[in-house]
Amino acid sequence: MLGNDPILLTPGPLTTSPTTREAMLRDWGSWDAAFNRITQSVCNDLVDIAHGRDDYVCVPLQGSGTFAVEAALGTLVPRDGCVLVPNNGAYCARIVRILQRLSIACVELPLREDEPVTVAALEQALAREPRITHVAQVHLETSAGLLNPLDEIAALCKRHGKSLIVDAMSSFGALPIDLRTGGIDALVSASGKCLEGVPGMGFVIVKRDVLDASEGRSRSLALDLYDQYAYMKKTTQWRFTPPTHVVAALRRALDTFFSEGGQRARGARYARNCATLIDGMQALGFRTFLCADAQAPVIVTFHAPRDAKWNFAEFYAAVRDAGYVLYPGKLTQVETFRVGCIGAIDVNEMHNAVAAIGRTLERLGIRVR
Amino acid sequence: MLGNDPILLTPGPLTTSPTTREAMLRDWGSWDAAFNRITQSVCNDLVDIAHGRDDYVCVPLQGSGTFAVEAALGTLVPRDGCVLVPNNGAYCARIVRILQRLSIACVELPLREDEPVTVAALEQALAREPRITHVAQVHLETSAGLLNPLDEIAALCKRHGKSLIVDAMSSFGALPIDLRTGGIDALVSASGKCLEGVPGMGFVIVKRDVLDASEGRSRSLALDLYDQYAYMKKTTQWRFTPPTHVVAALRRALDTFFSEGGQRARGARYARNCATLIDGMQALGFRTFLCADAQAPVIVTFHAPRDAKWNFAEFYAAVRDAGYVLYPGKLTQVETFRVGCIGAIDVNEMHNAVAAIGRTLERLGIRVR
Repeated sequence: MLGNDPILLTPGPLTTSPTTREAMLRDWGSWDAAFNRITQSVCNDLVDIAHGRDDYVCVPLQGSGTFAVEAALGTLVPRDGCVLVPNNGAYCARIVRILQRLSIACVELPLREDEPVTVAALEQALAREPRITHVAQVHLETSAGLLNPLDEIAALCKRHGKSLIVDAMSSFGALPIDLRTGGIDALVSASGKCLEGVPGMGFVIVKRDVLDASEGRSRSLALDLYDQYAYMKKTTQWRFTPPTHVVAALRRALDTFFSEGGQRARGARYARNCATLIDGMQALGFRTFLCADAQAPVIVTFHAPRDAKWNFAEFYAAVRDAGYVLYPGKLTQVETFRVGCIGAIDVNEMHNAVAAIGRTLERLGIRVR
Repeated sequence: MLGNDPILLTPGPLTTSPTTREAMLRDWGSWDAAFNRITQSVCNDLVDIAHGRDDYVCVPLQGSGTFAVEAALGTLVPRDGCVLVPNNGAYCARIVRILQRLSIACVELPLREDEPVTVAALEQALAREPRITHVAQVHLETSAGLLNPLDEIAALCKRHGKSLIVDAMSSFGALPIDLRTGGIDALVSASGKCLEGVPGMGFVIVKRDVLDASEGRSRSLALDLYDQYAYMKKTTQWRFTPPTHVVAALRRALDTFFSEGGQRARGARYARNCATLIDGMQALGFRTFLCADAQAPVIVTFHAPRDAKWNFAEFYAAVRDAGYVLYPGKLTQVETFRVGCIGAIDVNEMHNAVAAIGRTLERLGIRVR
């Protein structure tokens, strides 16, 4: 490596393009019209990516994606609301924790970590608990890399008159999301995921009338999505100091996103990355945790080898020295590790990463099968 | 200007050094030990700058400084606490708004926007309202650039057994703060102010035993300072995705801070900037809003000229075209504008900015006196 930067095979922060990072070489005043035009164009583009132009607005928020998830829940769900949370992983569980902190009633629909939510299970849950007003759905559960069937869930919520808030953290920009088909009230994601910006900013794409009805509801000032929106609408500025460099990098990353061909092209590149990774890892003897149907092309969970010599920390360090940063597992029952397919990387990085993993196994004398 | 970047004379975001921005040209994995060592070293240095090594810890938080202020109040003040807020500006008023949202009782001590808080006024307020458990004090009220006498306030809080939470957003790193003298429970600031990093991260330097006693108190997950601290202590990692590039830039900015000579040297540079600015502006006929005793060397509020031709937006745009970004006033009663003295700038920029302002006045035909 001799000082070269390793490639991040992690689900955000991830490897960004040099041109995106170079956008941070300039300082911007937060009161300045030039900066506020950047914010506005970023928000417009984010709404467009989800095909929400007519009825939705994008509210950016300082902080990590979780801050935006909490802001959406705390601003959009009334105090007497009740939220159904289908739970197949750590990010679903985090939504439950947030709702508990906010003293908002919630009903968990427990699922296995390799089990996508189904419409039938959701309908049963709704039938069991008529108090439910909202569904908070993680689109792509990053703990395992699991894809939940968003279109079907949105159609169901529309049918049942439930308000749907989607955590699209790891899917936005890579997987198709079309707000025109209805059923989704709000969509949350962040700068540093599939849009390939740097971390530091979340955003919520929300139905204008839903947001308009939420004035004065948030018990937090910093995480008040309505207040953030109303102030920005009035002044074009962020309420509190924006992460100027992060916003500028996201603007640059969005330019790259569109010139690559938008969501379809990005999703296709990630799908090729994912297939290359899985093929290569299977050739080394690794097994994926998820079946192919449930696997999203964003991050792949592999079972750890059963070899007594296996030690993730040691393996991680050795693969890192070979140029690739892996990610630990986040499952509760089985020992796994994860490899991301997203960021400014293509099949070449995936082939090279698999080769580096293969050399590392050999060097450490670890048998996978 | 021909494409050159203007110099920001704003109180954060501000002009950073090229070397600080270049630290953002690299991506970091948030699970990676190398990154977490950066976080740890940043936190250690921040505690050291305030001389808190023995009894204090630093908890970094994603988002703007206000997020860290809300996190400190929501985590450190018990639900049955009562907070005294001496109010001489917009940032004091923001603390009141945060406390109202959090349903924490608060007592305002109203002051003029040019009037520093006094020990006598504080003592009277404490005597009037024995329920008061905490004092939330803005050290340097950025609305006018006003300095409040922190040492005296801390001594008073110590004497009366009140817990003191200090918003040191615009003072930390530039003005002396010594936690060893006692009386301060927590100190809040951010990356993009006098430390000359980029915006996107706040931090709270807090007495370890005060933080330890605050477990389970926050009604927010994202803004739970205790949880952030406990997780980081256990894992060395941030709880949620950190703003990696902002953290790396702050590390670089701190290296520059220490090589410049630390707080004393930084404060001296800003004092020279401020004196140069005020002298030059007074020579142009401008009057400062604050008297010299109350003026902190960070941002200076000037009265707007009475000339009918004066229009801040037009003046701002013209000075910006000449290379300098000014800041609007934030006072409620009088028309003013502000000029910052902080950032990676020295007396040369201040002389040049005054010259640019002078040329602009002449070009726009504005009489100051």
